[in-house]
Amino acid sequence: MSDLSEGNEKDSKKPKQVEKLPPKKNFSEWYHELIQRAEIMDVRYPVKGLYVWYPFGFRIRKSVYGILREIMDREHEEVYFPALIPETELGKEGEHIKGFENEVYWVTHGGKDELDVKLALRPTSETAMYPMFRLWIRSHADLPLRVYQVVNTFRYETKHTRPLIRLREITSFKEAHTIHATFEDAEEQVRKAVAYYREFYDRLAIPYLICKRPEWDKFPGAVYTIAFDTVMPDGKTLQIGTVHNLGDNFARTFDITYETPDGEHSFAHQTCYGISERCIAALISVHGDDLGLVLPFEVSPVQVVVIPVLYKGREGEVLKVAREIGEDLKKYRVVVDESEERPGAKYYRWELKGVAIRIEVGPREVEEGTAVVSFRDEKKKFKVEKEKIPEMIEQWGEEMRERLYIRALNSMKEKIVLCESLDEVESHVKSGVAFTYLCDSERCGERLDEFGSVLGEVIEAPVSFEGEGRCVVCGKEGKLNAVARTY
Amino acid sequence: MSDLSEGNEKDSKKPKQVEKLPPKKNFSEWYHELIQRAEIMDVRYPVKGLYVWYPFGFRIRKSVYGILREIMDREHEEVYFPALIPETELGKEGEHIKGFENEVYWVTHGGKDELDVKLALRPTSETAMYPMFRLWIRSHADLPLRVYQVVNTFRYETKHTRPLIRLREITSFKEAHTIHATFEDAEEQVRKAVAYYREFYDRLAIPYLICKRPEWDKFPGAVYTIAFDTVMPDGKTLQIGTVHNLGDNFARTFDITYETPDGEHSFAHQTCYGISERCIAALISVHGDDLGLVLPFEVSPVQVVVIPVLYKGREGEVLKVAREIGEDLKKYRVVVDESEERPGAKYYRWELKGVAIRIEVGPREVEEGTAVVSFRDEKKKFKVEKEKIPEMIEQWGEEMRERLYIRALNSMKEKIVLCESLDEVESHVKSGVAFTYLCDSERCGERLDEFGSVLGEVIEAPVSFEGEGRCVVCGKEGKLNAVARTY
Repeated sequence: MSDLSEGNEKDSKKPKQVEKLPPKKNFSEWYHELIQRAEIMDVRYPVKGLYVWYPFGFRIRKSVYGILREIMDREHEEVYFPALIPETELGKEGEHIKGFENEVYWVTHGGKDELDVKLALRPTSETAMYPMFRLWIRSHADLPLRVYQVVNTFRYETKHTRPLIRLREITSFKEAHTIHATFEDAEEQVRKAVAYYREFYDRLAIPYLICKRPEWDKFPGAVYTIAFDTVMPDGKTLQIGTVHNLGDNFARTFDITYETPDGEHSFAHQTCYGISERCIAALISVHGDDLGLVLPFEVSPVQVVVIPVLYKGREGEVLKVAREIGEDLKKYRVVVDESEERPGAKYYRWELKGVAIRIEVGPREVEEGTAVVSFRDEKKKFKVEKEKIPEMIEQWGEEMRERLYIRALNSMKEKIVLCESLDEVESHVKSGVAFTYLCDSERCGERLDEFGSVLGEVIEAPVSFEGEGRCVVCGKEGKLNAVARTY
Repeated sequence: MSDLSEGNEKDSKKPKQVEKLPPKKNFSEWYHELIQRAEIMDVRYPVKGLYVWYPFGFRIRKSVYGILREIMDREHEEVYFPALIPETELGKEGEHIKGFENEVYWVTHGGKDELDVKLALRPTSETAMYPMFRLWIRSHADLPLRVYQVVNTFRYETKHTRPLIRLREITSFKEAHTIHATFEDAEEQVRKAVAYYREFYDRLAIPYLICKRPEWDKFPGAVYTIAFDTVMPDGKTLQIGTVHNLGDNFARTFDITYETPDGEHSFAHQTCYGISERCIAALISVHGDDLGLVLPFEVSPVQVVVIPVLYKGREGEVLKVAREIGEDLKKYRVVVDESEERPGAKYYRWELKGVAIRIEVGPREVEEGTAVVSFRDEKKKFKVEKEKIPEMIEQWGEEMRERLYIRALNSMKEKIVLCESLDEVESHVKSGVAFTYLCDSERCGERLDEFGSVLGEVIEAPVSFEGEGRCVVCGKEGKLNAVARTY
């Protein structure tokens, strides 16, 4: 694939030269450049809000969604429902359609014919699935039902779009849908889903806040919504997962009933929960640095790079040892970089791509039977006996994940401040997340929404404050809430 | 999941009863019923031509596409391009748009806004990819480029739709696209692609014809098209894969050029090749029988079922042994069926689902340290020492694949007849594939198209006839062609 770092003009004749990535403190610019240069997504597709997954980016996607599928497969079955939803079904649940009608893409024509019934490109799949669930569920013996799918969904975004974050085609939406006999069973599933998502983000070393979204910001049609947010380098939060208890709202709309053991007919209770490719946006943004991507070992497309440091006359023996190391590590995703570039150019390229472990071998190491090892997230290098490398890899990978997690967690903690006045909230949300107390009233919430968004009642956070206090707006009894500017 | 075999009415009160599948000789009815009853797809989605993948069906899809990905990954990289293509790009290649314009779904509105530029739901991705390839390819060092994606594509089908065969949303289109320096390099890639597809269908035990499609039926925009067709039980053929040499047609339209080692600019040469979920339609149709699915071991969602045959007072010991057998086979997809149904009902259900290997254990087998083994494609049962089972499984699976292949191959051979007159062609295509000689002229081809479709010049077939002979229409020099009614 062509090197894109020299700019977008195909016919540019200027010589290849390595331009520095903007520093991460200019987060927006850094993110946009890194996505393109590290070949995660090509942002040059000729429609706003649509992007191309490069092979390298796709390999990250494959590893990350591999973890998500592994977790889901423990108690869900994978399915696939159509991408096209007839207008009649999409419109059935009143709150739901109100929440989505401004962002639905409509298919109105097939060939030269106008369609009798317009078809929506799924913005999410409740209204594709639930008419079928009505047919699937008949008795208590059919419950619980737990399914998921990983699909493309579509939103007509009018705001500023951004790769992996705000898209018109969300290419990788993992949505799970479950059906239960009772509200309590659905609540239990919500707890499980939260635990699954916690495990998923822990494996990616991404810290998060868990909040219960305020009434006015819950999923359209849900009883309540639990959300995962992470904090981006610029202090804005990114919603990276949501879990909804739908109660029997959709069951009533779509007539999903079951026969109880006593022969009665009851409405079913439902949950749904989703994660999109924002998980990869978080991965890039939370861990990356001025040199490029920093990817946890488990999901890095190249986990180990072996770099032979060649000196004239000694090339053969060095190459031989470098290849042996590569061979010893073949159960991992390993590259032995035999290209003719200078080592510095190689370091630059593999750092940009976030390779977790780098192993260098020169003539001296060949003599010693050693190699020089370094990790993407640390400056230091150290020597290891060549024979010991294979047995150390997993441990190094896990230690790196832990380091990344602690670094990210500390960075998140620093951005969270307990604010005791509206002025403090207003001032702090410019660069971080304000925790403050808020009562139930939507009016008080709206006052805070002027500064950013109320993420909701804090359920889990890396910092601990009292759960209750006086509402920062009206002074009545309130609960600990998070407020931030959001992506 | 609910048992759907008693009909589609949710509120039907009639007692559960096992209705027999229509016999396979009534192929169309058999296929439709089997797809639903074996829980491959739910055909009750409220839009014509759109279907739901059940969990069981999805597991077949996962195994089958796992094989396809394994083969592709050897020299292609996986990518993902957007599902929405602007009208301006889709229309650029004249032949291409002519071929697709009557079956494209158009997105015309986002929310309540009319879009400035209409967006096509991809019918195939040449026009999404090739404007980007223009940017990706600059020098001969960027070649060859080989990528693939597995995506949903859309066709506004006006003909009779059928699950997995003729769809409005093709949910699982594997499309590969490659770029090369020269026409010869592209030809070499066509040969490789044909070899990949051969391997894929061999592993599924599905026999095929390989034909070069006639000029008037090639892929819109291609230089030539090589196609794989299998023969369905009713004698109609199903196209299950195509490989196209695009020459530099699209490169000229989308300005995909590269700099040669001499510094000249040349148009690139391209190929593309695709397989859709028709591969699963073929799998079901070619191997299935009056009892239901017959799935090759490698792709069966349940590879082995262990059935304890329980007698009063001996349940404990029998169950214990059945579970031990299950445990010994845990690296496979194995189910120990401990449900309380009669063995007959269990056999019925697992036969319907196509389970490759069935193992029964009763009190006598417990005493003997044996088990009774049978295969889905054979009537006979035989006893095996329990300890020997794990080491035999792979061999049994492979032997079954070979038996399935030979049976399918013989059935295909029987349906192919060399026809020496138009009357013979007309008569034979009613129940099979007519091989006959045809010259190059489109007029002679049109004469044959009246009876069915000219599949093209036969390149590979399980029966061998002279490659050349007198055109059955005009008597001039001709080549061996296949003619059939097609799905």
